[in-house]
Amino acid sequence: MKKGQDVLGIDIGGTQIKMALVDSRGHIRRQTTSEWHPVGSWKEDLDGLVKAVGSFLASYAVSRKTLLGVGIGLPGLIDAERGFVHHLVNVRGWRELPAAALLKKRLGLPVWIDNDVNVMTLGEATYGAARGYRYVICLTLGTGVGGGILFEGELYRGRSFSAGEIGHMPVSRRGPRCACGNRGCLETYVGNRAIVRLAKRRIRSGERTRLVRMFGGRLNRLTPEVIGRAARAGDRLALSVWEEVAEWLGMALSGIVNLYNPDRIVIGGGVAEAGEVLFRPLRKVLKKRTFAIPMRGLQVVKAKLGNQAGVVGASVLVRRMSE
Amino acid sequence: MKKGQDVLGIDIGGTQIKMALVDSRGHIRRQTTSEWHPVGSWKEDLDGLVKAVGSFLASYAVSRKTLLGVGIGLPGLIDAERGFVHHLVNVRGWRELPAAALLKKRLGLPVWIDNDVNVMTLGEATYGAARGYRYVICLTLGTGVGGGILFEGELYRGRSFSAGEIGHMPVSRRGPRCACGNRGCLETYVGNRAIVRLAKRRIRSGERTRLVRMFGGRLNRLTPEVIGRAARAGDRLALSVWEEVAEWLGMALSGIVNLYNPDRIVIGGGVAEAGEVLFRPLRKVLKKRTFAIPMRGLQVVKAKLGNQAGVVGASVLVRRMSE
Repeated sequence: MKKGQDVLGIDIGGTQIKMALVDSRGHIRRQTTSEWHPVGSWKEDLDGLVKAVGSFLASYAVSRKTLLGVGIGLPGLIDAERGFVHHLVNVRGWRELPAAALLKKRLGLPVWIDNDVNVMTLGEATYGAARGYRYVICLTLGTGVGGGILFEGELYRGRSFSAGEIGHMPVSRRGPRCACGNRGCLETYVGNRAIVRLAKRRIRSGERTRLVRMFGGRLNRLTPEVIGRAARAGDRLALSVWEEVAEWLGMALSGIVNLYNPDRIVIGGGVAEAGEVLFRPLRKVLKKRTFAIPMRGLQVVKAKLGNQAGVVGASVLVRRMSE
Repeated sequence: MKKGQDVLGIDIGGTQIKMALVDSRGHIRRQTTSEWHPVGSWKEDLDGLVKAVGSFLASYAVSRKTLLGVGIGLPGLIDAERGFVHHLVNVRGWRELPAAALLKKRLGLPVWIDNDVNVMTLGEATYGAARGYRYVICLTLGTGVGGGILFEGELYRGRSFSAGEIGHMPVSRRGPRCACGNRGCLETYVGNRAIVRLAKRRIRSGERTRLVRMFGGRLNRLTPEVIGRAARAGDRLALSVWEEVAEWLGMALSGIVNLYNPDRIVIGGGVAEAGEVLFRPLRKVLKKRTFAIPMRGLQVVKAKLGNQAGVVGASVLVRRMSE
């Protein structure tokens, strides 16, 4: 009977909390997105989270008894087995914290936590683009660049739960200093900020582009989403920005393909919404750089669950962990 | 009883064949090394190999009946399950060849084949520096730079048996063209040739070094082994060559540590014989570039089996495959 129960899936970002009631087939019954302003104290942040869960359940008249548990994806380094937060990215005050146990006590429900990209990978593995594949690299492209690894169809977390940090594989020895302390990390070349910076530099150098018109000439309004739209409309400058992103991404992924020899590469996150203007040159770079044998039959596809990957994946986390 | 039988382990390189009778505890009872000159035709090469096995067994009066089987490590892309050679590196004429079946017929013994670095990894996993560790990256540094991956203590070969090609992870986007078709592969920076080239460049630029005296001023006699000796004797130029090698190697390995979060990194092959003049700066670079959590407790050690890793590993291949 347990398996048929709903799960509360929660996706916590730097500024937002998404909550969803997810059924045993991965369908969302109810969901909300609310703003979240972490205050730098885990105690107060947990108070806010507990309150938010309470009002979500109340507003949809969900009884705790009907729930199998609560799954939470968090942006940071998480020991999923012990339910422990080592630290969060862009959220201060959460360090070496037994968050799952604390929340379990407060919520009166079993709670499982994991890294947000791991959770997204679980979602794609069970209901999305990685379903049925055994050796998969999942990538999320956004402000940060994250990764998840499927091994034999199961999420691989690594010896100390920190596996999958594809964004922090260096692609240039003397490249820009990354927040992680390393130099030339992939994230510093294909993260949101890098993409926008690249487009700005081109615009300032006087290249012709419809981008300037699209956002009224205000460079600070430029986003990967706008650059994606311009590229899809055929704008040369925007297209060349995506080609440049594809070069760096393809370089890093060629190394991963030669190392890991996966079935499939699944790319999600906001930046992946650029679509074929990114995927087409990326496949070309991969083909050029990678050994023929591991490239044969390798598929590079977009993630399927979009911005629901977090809450749906969090529900998968609970189901896997309570098996 | 089967498990107690000896195995014939064979390690085939570009110019040498090593054969050894290996007992069930990984000890070598008998061994020979002979020159091998592949002639560009797999048929003739197999003839030569069959003859060499025959004379090895005859000279030590080994009856085929006492053997569990024959294991062979080959330099190239091998489908170990099907006993199939896709292609060999630096050996012409072996393409898409069911080598294990052909040899089984000719030798009258079960034959298992695998990639040489996979075989070395099996050896280190069972009797060497990777023994008892679950998530291990094995690296061989020589003319080529190869890798093997242990996952849950077992060799991971990848979807199409090509996993572990660490030497072909690019570390520089516009770096030198590699024989594999990619650019800036790790091998082009830390392979034998790259190390010698680097030392030569420094010597030609007039830096003081005892290296010149060591090989009588003939630059074409320079090898990583000589540069290793000079460094251990305190030669500044030689030390700085190893520091440079450690920078590139550390950059690539930091990416792998952030991605895979292993227990242990085991480094073998001729270049690893440089020892601490390479390992010391390498550990420093890794510490500087890698996330703190996956670095904690991570050990970077030298392979244990030295140039016996191939034949001993080939014996492990046979035992694992006949289980």
